Amino acid sequence: MQIFLFQCVIDCRNTGAEDVYIKVLYCGICHTDIHQIKNDLGMSNYPMVPGHEVVGEVKEVGSEVSNFKVGDKVGVGVLVGCCRNCRPCEADVEQYCNKKIWSYNDVYTDGKPTQGGFAESMVVDQKFVVKIPDGMALEQAAPLLCAGVTVFSPLSHFGLKQSGLRGGILGLGGVGHMGVLIAKAMGHHVTVISSSDKKRVEAMEHLGADQYLVSSDATRMQEAADSLDYIIDTVPANHPLEPYLSLLKLDGKLILTGVINTPMQFLTPMVMLGRKAITGSFIGSMKETKEMLEFCREKGVTSMIEVIKMDYVNKAFERLEKNDVRYRFVVDVAGSKLDP
Amino acid sequence: MQIFLFQCVIDCRNTGAEDVYIKVLYCGICHTDIHQIKNDLGMSNYPMVPGHEVVGEVKEVGSEVSNFKVGDKVGVGVLVGCCRNCRPCEADVEQYCNKKIWSYNDVYTDGKPTQGGFAESMVVDQKFVVKIPDGMALEQAAPLLCAGVTVFSPLSHFGLKQSGLRGGILGLGGVGHMGVLIAKAMGHHVTVISSSDKKRVEAMEHLGADQYLVSSDATRMQEAADSLDYIIDTVPANHPLEPYLSLLKLDGKLILTGVINTPMQFLTPMVMLGRKAITGSFIGSMKETKEMLEFCREKGVTSMIEVIKMDYVNKAFERLEKNDVRYRFVVDVAGSKLDP
Repeated sequence: MQIFLFQCVIDCRNTGAEDVYIKVLYCGICHTDIHQIKNDLGMSNYPMVPGHEVVGEVKEVGSEVSNFKVGDKVGVGVLVGCCRNCRPCEADVEQYCNKKIWSYNDVYTDGKPTQGGFAESMVVDQKFVVKIPDGMALEQAAPLLCAGVTVFSPLSHFGLKQSGLRGGILGLGGVGHMGVLIAKAMGHHVTVISSSDKKRVEAMEHLGADQYLVSSDATRMQEAADSLDYIIDTVPANHPLEPYLSLLKLDGKLILTGVINTPMQFLTPMVMLGRKAITGSFIGSMKETKEMLEFCREKGVTSMIEVIKMDYVNKAFERLEKNDVRYRFVVDVAGSKLDP
Repeated sequence: MQIFLFQCVIDCRNTGAEDVYIKVLYCGICHTDIHQIKNDLGMSNYPMVPGHEVVGEVKEVGSEVSNFKVGDKVGVGVLVGCCRNCRPCEADVEQYCNKKIWSYNDVYTDGKPTQGGFAESMVVDQKFVVKIPDGMALEQAAPLLCAGVTVFSPLSHFGLKQSGLRGGILGLGGVGHMGVLIAKAMGHHVTVISSSDKKRVEAMEHLGADQYLVSSDATRMQEAADSLDYIIDTVPANHPLEPYLSLLKLDGKLILTGVINTPMQFLTPMVMLGRKAITGSFIGSMKETKEMLEFCREKGVTSMIEVIKMDYVNKAFERLEKNDVRYRFVVDVAGSKLDP
């Protein structure tokens, strides 16, 4: 893999009336960053500054900004703009706006490219900025802004927050590990489902899962049939859905969070005879991001990360491609030499 | 196709304490009957008496039966038994009980085969018998017991009963035509979606649909993107799901009602970027069947049928396979000569 790395300091726009000027402190590395850097989705524009799990310090605010002040620790996630007039925008689920603007590799309202958090600073509309709760470690907050809200949002939206539920987490990467931690904090019985036995110890001991299922173990899978209220499927590659649909109870939900560019398959009786749903969710709204941060503060949920400097980022991408990270790389941006 | 036809009078069990002895008057023909007769699902046992949309008259009731009396007009649908102890049974959704007993081609609690409504009479546990509302034409009531509740149940369960919604009906057979009629009676704006223009007049004029979309008309399909709250997919053969997923609004539901024995395909972004659900539903509960009959009585909903005698049944099966019926065959069982 050739990695395009941009450590340059990007020119930011002047701080507008609704804008917050942020000095970047930390930025997480998400699997999507690899897709974007490598142009896997065929829509990458260069030069590109990736990074959408951004934590920083407010350095300046616009005249219309009242919720943030200089010195605040804040976060920015996957989006920095939306139309504000469509049905999703009016329902406060701007992540489903058809005119949403991505934090990077997109075009802002001023016609200029958006650039992400692997940079010295960002200027972001206040609607897309959240306060990091006091007392939360800043580097650990970064992965919450994408991976964290990606699991929190569907649990919240689909009425799956109450304690006592039985949930499954399929895949134990950045999103999956947040799934285990957040579901446990909600009081759920959490089963990690994996294709091999390799992650049993870390799932059960490090992350505190209640059960570990190897999907090729037919006996155990059969015993676990009809037992789960939901499964959050974080696997970013094609895989059969039947084994997981069979684990769901009546009315159970299989919640897809990974963009997969080949068709997924399922048999209709697996869905009909149990009124199960194959559904999906895309990150979360700004409202949900705030709720998630407050939830994590209250419950003491933090991400498990490996903090690196910017000069390690090429190696980090290589390791991430092999899923060789427990569980998220976070770049100490402010502590790195950014000028080439 | 070779049609196995059983017009014989089957020996019924004696009327038990909880049983209702019914003289069969009418019985609808469902597409599933063809699957069963032809052993398409590999689980048929012969001799088989098909028929699971049964309307008849009560001739005798058991000592514990209080809701029915001799002379009542009653209906029997797809099921005649369940375990009564599992989670679905306790939640009054016995159609999802793993030990449900089908009206025919199954084994009853006494160890004997169950036999359906193409017979002179049936003995059925009172739990699985419903009263046909006064004033409802008996022959038109028959298709409500399977086709009708198949569309009513998911609309009711998924919170899609309120007026003002925009619904789609995919496929215009027995289930689809009930979908249009019931959704219209709920006050929905109903779009019929079809692979050709052939059924436009009947959809719009005979059934009262509001809109007709041909799925191969890319311009119209694009115009209709993001416009539907739900689609009831009644097509009993494999078909691509993307065109229909794209018609759904944010949080829209694609509700599958047809058992298809080859894998269906979809792309994850079509589901995720709009939090859409591919879900399904299997007939409906006895509770929902009663609600549906009452709803149809109140709103004046009836099925559109072609009444036949038993000696036409082989021809009817042939025509049904070609979807050449508007929209359900109903056999006048009592008016037919049954003894061979």
